[in-house]
Amino acid sequence: MKIVRPTLLLDEAICKKNIAHIVSKANAAGVSLRPHFKTHQSHEIGQWFHAEGVDLCTVSSIRMAEYFAADGWKDITVAFPLNALEVDSINRLASSIKLNLCIVTPHSLELLLKKLKFPVQCYIEIDTGNHRTGIDPEDVEAIDRILSIITHQPLLSFSGFLSHAGHSYACKTPNDIHKVHLESIQPMIRLAKHYRNQFPDLRLSVGDTPICSVVDDFGGMDEIRPGNLVFYDLQQCAIGSSTLNQIAIAMACPVVAKYPLKKEIVVHGGAVHFSKDILRKQDGTVVYGEVVKLNQDGWELPPLPMFVKSLSQEHGILQASAELFSMIEVGDVLGILPVHSCLTADAMGEYFTTQGRRIAMMSKTS
Amino acid sequence: MKIVRPTLLLDEAICKKNIAHIVSKANAAGVSLRPHFKTHQSHEIGQWFHAEGVDLCTVSSIRMAEYFAADGWKDITVAFPLNALEVDSINRLASSIKLNLCIVTPHSLELLLKKLKFPVQCYIEIDTGNHRTGIDPEDVEAIDRILSIITHQPLLSFSGFLSHAGHSYACKTPNDIHKVHLESIQPMIRLAKHYRNQFPDLRLSVGDTPICSVVDDFGGMDEIRPGNLVFYDLQQCAIGSSTLNQIAIAMACPVVAKYPLKKEIVVHGGAVHFSKDILRKQDGTVVYGEVVKLNQDGWELPPLPMFVKSLSQEHGILQASAELFSMIEVGDVLGILPVHSCLTADAMGEYFTTQGRRIAMMSKTS
Repeated sequence: MKIVRPTLLLDEAICKKNIAHIVSKANAAGVSLRPHFKTHQSHEIGQWFHAEGVDLCTVSSIRMAEYFAADGWKDITVAFPLNALEVDSINRLASSIKLNLCIVTPHSLELLLKKLKFPVQCYIEIDTGNHRTGIDPEDVEAIDRILSIITHQPLLSFSGFLSHAGHSYACKTPNDIHKVHLESIQPMIRLAKHYRNQFPDLRLSVGDTPICSVVDDFGGMDEIRPGNLVFYDLQQCAIGSSTLNQIAIAMACPVVAKYPLKKEIVVHGGAVHFSKDILRKQDGTVVYGEVVKLNQDGWELPPLPMFVKSLSQEHGILQASAELFSMIEVGDVLGILPVHSCLTADAMGEYFTTQGRRIAMMSKTS
Repeated sequence: MKIVRPTLLLDEAICKKNIAHIVSKANAAGVSLRPHFKTHQSHEIGQWFHAEGVDLCTVSSIRMAEYFAADGWKDITVAFPLNALEVDSINRLASSIKLNLCIVTPHSLELLLKKLKFPVQCYIEIDTGNHRTGIDPEDVEAIDRILSIITHQPLLSFSGFLSHAGHSYACKTPNDIHKVHLESIQPMIRLAKHYRNQFPDLRLSVGDTPICSVVDDFGGMDEIRPGNLVFYDLQQCAIGSSTLNQIAIAMACPVVAKYPLKKEIVVHGGAVHFSKDILRKQDGTVVYGEVVKLNQDGWELPPLPMFVKSLSQEHGILQASAELFSMIEVGDVLGILPVHSCLTADAMGEYFTTQGRRIAMMSKTS
């Protein structure tokens, strides 16, 4: 493949290995795997999971549920607080697949019920420490209020409790991630005990890549929903949930300028390609990506001794060592490992395998 | 228009006023206006400039040049360092339009010449203090090296010097912006004096929204290339180059959750919609957007006493005052003024006017 502009490369072999690894881990642990597809947003990559026996998935929007339902997924969880304004799309989906919604407040359910026509499953989202969304696990009154609506409406079924321990992303070591896991499942277990008499089939769904990467025993949870681990990224490496050789995507970026005095190399590859998440190194350096050498089969590890120090809309500025600086020429194409693969993939909208085959993604527009 | 999911609203009247304002300012100042289209990336909005008599434009990539050439633009400057790997596209463009390239190193020109088949115009980019790309204005030797290539090649013509005083974005007041302008045009004027005997038609092209917004006298420059001012944003308001009522876009975001204890409101609207640029307020608060009330005609000013305190992939977390918190309900749709309109528009890929008409943008994918 001849690369002439910023191109998101996908190493199919690494990606499929990541998929196979989590599938076998979930099997060994006896939990259902419902991978989050917001990271790859691609029919084809979804099918790589399906080929490993996965037939459940998670998405982050109703639109994404529609996209994967169109490719044959029949049991989809929208792990984002129910937005009842989308009831028309919800009805279309619920008429043909098992649609699992995520409830954080009785109000959205009440709004939904005004126009709901087909059965939907309801998970109640519990805040197990991430403090972004979800109900305080001690707030049994709020949970009961939601359950009372669900149990009185024939179109609604209660599936169980769902949580996202996203504070695992703030960890610094695998040990810290283990600790977050053990703490965050406690309230889920307590809730299950409290409600299992009334709802014997209730399920406990948890999921985030750091925990699913580091933990082998999910401590009584029924389902895991990791997303990022399909590709991993520098952020995951920094907290110890992946290694560099598990990262499955890299952006190919042409070198367009060199500044010898400051040892800066400018590439075509900016915020519109990577988005703008950063990694703060221990010495305080802010990094927007690490640089790798590309070859015919993909990219080489370890990364080169240089990093992306800043991004503007189309420019990426790389800081190089003196030795490396002299080895790189205008017209070369470098690889850049992303800080946050979910946002980078979303910004690009398509992949090219290291063999040059295009892999499409969900369109962002109407 | 019924809004049910994150939707980028465009106030056509404000946008056209912004366009008319810069057109009349450029006319009054006697400079050519070559607006940067990387902000809107839209055929239709390009035509709004054309309707005001503008027939020059600037883009940030060859792909964007192709997109606007396809809509009839015949004189396009690619204000990004020449990437000679794109020579096939450059040849196609140069065969049908006046294509102005931006040269920062002789190497890219030498690479280009191996396969160039049609005439192109060359601007030499000068670093007037932004220190991202461009040649040090004191480095006459480097400039001469590039000029020597250009003058010996019949397919190349020298157009003049181009600079981007992007350090104006770091200003805190209009006075500071004025100062950056006055300082950054000095090296351009010196270069013009030095080279005008040899190149009597050389032009001086500068451009960034803060300076073009604040300054009326462009001090001998021939051309300005502002982009962001078509929409403006909170960043521009913070440095004093625009007012809130000049901001032409706002994201409509459904409210999906409310947390009374922390007075947080969760909307559907995250990093995949806004990208992740931040604004740091004087008290250190980090802001990802300001919240406005939507109405039938668009949105209302002043903004509500709340702000976007964090973004994850699909979630936006708003911090509200106690009074306001109680007035907003799950199921409402709020407007959010973006921190950086260029990246927000790029992330969304389409606009809807406040009357509900869709405006398409350039596709990001192959």
